[in-house]
Amino acid sequence: MKTAIFPGTFDPFTIGHFDVVQRALQIFDKVIIATIGDNQKKKTLFSSEARAAMIKQAMQPYAGKVEVVIYDTMTVDFCRAHHSNFIIRGIRTVGDYNFESIMAQANQKLSPVIDTVFFPSRPEHAYICSSVVRDILLYQGDVSAFIPKGMEIAAISCAKK
Amino acid sequence: MKTAIFPGTFDPFTIGHFDVVQRALQIFDKVIIATIGDNQKKKTLFSSEARAAMIKQAMQPYAGKVEVVIYDTMTVDFCRAHHSNFIIRGIRTVGDYNFESIMAQANQKLSPVIDTVFFPSRPEHAYICSSVVRDILLYQGDVSAFIPKGMEIAAISCAKK
Amino acid sequence: MKTAIFPGTFDPFTIGHFDVVQRALQIFDKVIIATIGDNQKKKTLFSSEARAAMIKQAMQPYAGKVEVVIYDTMTVDFCRAHHSNFIIRGIRTVGDYNFESIMAQANQKLSPVIDTVFFPSRPEHAYICSSVVRDILLYQGDVSAFIPKGMEIAAISCAKK
Amino acid sequence: MKTAIFPGTFDPFTIGHFDVVQRALQIFDKVIIATIGDNQKKKTLFSSEARAAMIKQAMQPYAGKVEVVIYDTMTVDFCRAHHSNFIIRGIRTVGDYNFESIMAQANQKLSPVIDTVFFPSRPEHAYICSSVVRDILLYQGDVSAFIPKGMEIAAISCAKK
Amino acid sequence: MKTAIFPGTFDPFTIGHFDVVQRALQIFDKVIIATIGDNQKKKTLFSSEARAAMIKQAMQPYAGKVEVVIYDTMTVDFCRAHHSNFIIRGIRTVGDYNFESIMAQANQKLSPVIDTVFFPSRPEHAYICSSVVRDILLYQGDVSAFIPKGMEIAAISCAKK
Amino acid sequence: MKTAIFPGTFDPFTIGHFDVVQRALQIFDKVIIATIGDNQKKKTLFSSEARAAMIKQAMQPYAGKVEVVIYDTMTVDFCRAHHSNFIIRGIRTVGDYNFESIMAQANQKLSPVIDTVFFPSRPEHAYICSSVVRDILLYQGDVSAFIPKGMEIAAISCAKK
Repeated sequence: MKTAIFPGTFDPFTIGHFDVVQRALQIFDKVIIATIGDNQKKKTLFSSEARAAMIKQAMQPYAGKVEVVIYDTMTVDFCRAHHSNFIIRGIRTVGDYNFESIMAQANQKLSPVIDTVFFPSRPEHAYICSSVVRDILLYQGDVSAFIPKGMEIAAISCAKK
Repeated sequence: MKTAIFPGTFDPFTIGHFDVVQRALQIFDKVIIATIGDNQKKKTLFSSEARAAMIKQAMQPYAGKVEVVIYDTMTVDFCRAHHSNFIIRGIRTVGDYNFESIMAQANQKLSPVIDTVFFPSRPEHAYICSSVVRDILLYQGDVSAFIPKGMEIAAISCAKK
Repeated sequence: MKTAIFPGTFDPFTIGHFDVVQRALQIFDKVIIATIGDNQKKKTLFSSEARAAMIKQAMQPYAGKVEVVIYDTMTVDFCRAHHSNFIIRGIRTVGDYNFESIMAQANQKLSPVIDTVFFPSRPEHAYICSSVVRDILLYQGDVSAFIPKGMEIAAISCAKK
Repeated sequence: MKTAIFPGTFDPFTIGHFDVVQRALQIFDKVIIATIGDNQKKKTLFSSEARAAMIKQAMQPYAGKVEVVIYDTMTVDFCRAHHSNFIIRGIRTVGDYNFESIMAQANQKLSPVIDTVFFPSRPEHAYICSSVVRDILLYQGDVSAFIPKGMEIAAISCAKK
Repeated sequence: MKTAIFPGTFDPFTIGHFDVVQRALQIFDKVIIATIGDNQKKKTLFSSEARAAMIKQAMQPYAGKVEVVIYDTMTVDFCRAHHSNFIIRGIRTVGDYNFESIMAQANQKLSPVIDTVFFPSRPEHAYICSSVVRDILLYQGDVSAFIPKGMEIAAISCAKK
Repeated sequence: MKTAIFPGTFDPFTIGHFDVVQRALQIFDKVIIATIGDNQKKKTLFSSEARAAMIKQAMQPYAGKVEVVIYDTMTVDFCRAHHSNFIIRGIRTVGDYNFESIMAQANQKLSPVIDTVFFPSRPEHAYICSSVVRDILLYQGDVSAFIPKGMEIAAISCAKK
């Protein structure tokens, strides 16, 4: 059984992320979505619990093949602990590629058996990213076109300050 | 059984291409390397026969899981004919990404079930590309550090004029 | 009356080009589509006459506000001859931007009153470009999703060798 | 009458921004410069009042055709409220393009009638950006070559902490 | 005697930085490594004293030709004060280039006699950067492959909060 | 004595190339400009003799410190033959960087002691490149702002067909 790890902040999860999981499930038997825990390094709009809950809601149609986990270790350590050698990431732009290729190479240095594969975003998702969703939420705009069907944005009270 | 198609010109095949196949075989059960036939559109240094022969030589250690085919159709038609929904490509630079993401999206438009996944090059292969190999060959330089072990560059007489 | 010049090879015209013209007509009163003449510098698949004829067919809904001209001068000279100070170009990728910003700056150097404005492509057109269309035509594939409605690809006999 | 919206932080306004407005006024009848209000999301060196005051000072030669407004809504809502369908942005680098094309596509998704056009920076302004100006100010350097003539940098006491 | 200034945050110094100094010493007689002082603008993991101490440790083999200084002025002012007209920077990615070319042009504007030269990273260092090192340290991972031999990561107690 | 090699096609030499040589002479004692010979791989507008003659004319003010040579070997072999370990190249855009960093890394692989340093173009030269000059020449435009003072474009009869 081949398992892929999909690590990220997912603050919040978008239809772009959803699409990556759907496509990865064509290749892998299982995908573990690993959302980073609350820590001092990166301020997030949603708490890790809220993020994980939203992802679970979004991925319900694939419940048997997808797991959602909060993690707070190095990504390669998370892969090892879950017996997976594969990290998956979506790439929307040249800026994404620039950053992600560095992370992929660093992870391979830290753990040579762990490989990263990239899914190029579908054109209609090129502008769908968590920071745009957060911008829209800031002004109480409508984000329904940017997040998976059935996923409800966690109540404001869940958002960390 | 999951088969991936690795299409390309491979003029000639390099250790960067070899690495992509090795890594893809961790995920897919079989890889079909599809080298483009001789046509008027793209001038190549090596004939398609020479290119295919060199690839077969390079991939001998993986003979059971790798097939080498000359093709002269659209890539998506080749995928359909070989019952594969997966195209794989290596990405070395932002320039590669720019070009390959367009091709991936165009192929998905032409055949929605066919997906493309990218393997980011290992850092030590970042500068390994067929055009650099051809440049070195032009001046009778030593390309042994750029091509797979055991693969011998086809005789000059194989090169098309 | 404000006129914009849309220069290009348009080998052939695509729905991406069509979209740029439509959007430019929201800002400018008239758009002159200037397709480069047949010359030794750039080999094209279609003759300039075939290209111009296809563009006219595509732009018929906007016949009163769009003109199609074959030109064989520097772009800035064409602008001057048509009393326009504005060049418009569509931008799909970082690669496009890299090239087009150089041309825009060179044109401004050659003629300081002439300015260039860029229209970022719509996401769903990011992969629509003339070279992909030509690739598909090479293998007799279906390009109807890539070209404007009503525009028929000129007969093979029009294509230059 | 055609109005364009030029949204931004302008922390502070530079000769690059000034150039975009001047060029936009060749195409549009009016430009509304919309500087983002003080909010928790983005720390600025200058308060929104100081930024707006500096921009008004800089744009005095075009007073009849330029308006300066502090806003605190989504950009597309601001456009609607001011009856404009056009957003303008200057592009200096590939990094700018990468970010701005995402924002342009997201805005078009949120409000399909609103379009964004890009003005490629003049070569001599390629390195002129607000963050460089802030860096120089941090060390009490001379920023007169980076800001519009006649615009005086607001007193330190205006800067937010 | 030709002296080059190598300014940076170096939070912390990596084998990529070390490589730039080694290569610069082939061209210049002396390299002054200038690490930015503690200031409110940029939060660092290590204090400037800890950063300078680590760099001195790393550069011990080149002690006679390398100087390490904490600075808190504009880079061009530092160059003038140390009678150097040359800034050196390593470039790993397109993102680095985008940022560094802006800084180089801004510095040349501020002081026309001061020039910047770039050293393209060696391929095996492409993913070596301070932020990756800090990420690994955050989880108590092993950074020995990312920092110069003999350089010991300063005790946690040196890290600023 | 430190010598740098400046290899290129220089078809033709521009004020951007001239600027690179001037700046390199601040660091190196001598610069050898190596223009590639006539060969089947790359069609040029000017013959190698015409290109070398134009460069000599342009560099006359620096005659004692600059040499102009036509070469037809690998660049690293040329460096060895001229006892230089340094290649210099100008970088104008992200596209340039993408290509040049690959060549620099490949050359370092072929000859580990040979290093490449990049000079970022001055902003006002960002759009100055040989291909733009050739485009203008194609239409008999005025290229005097793009080439060094005193350099006269070689007669049409020198251009290769």
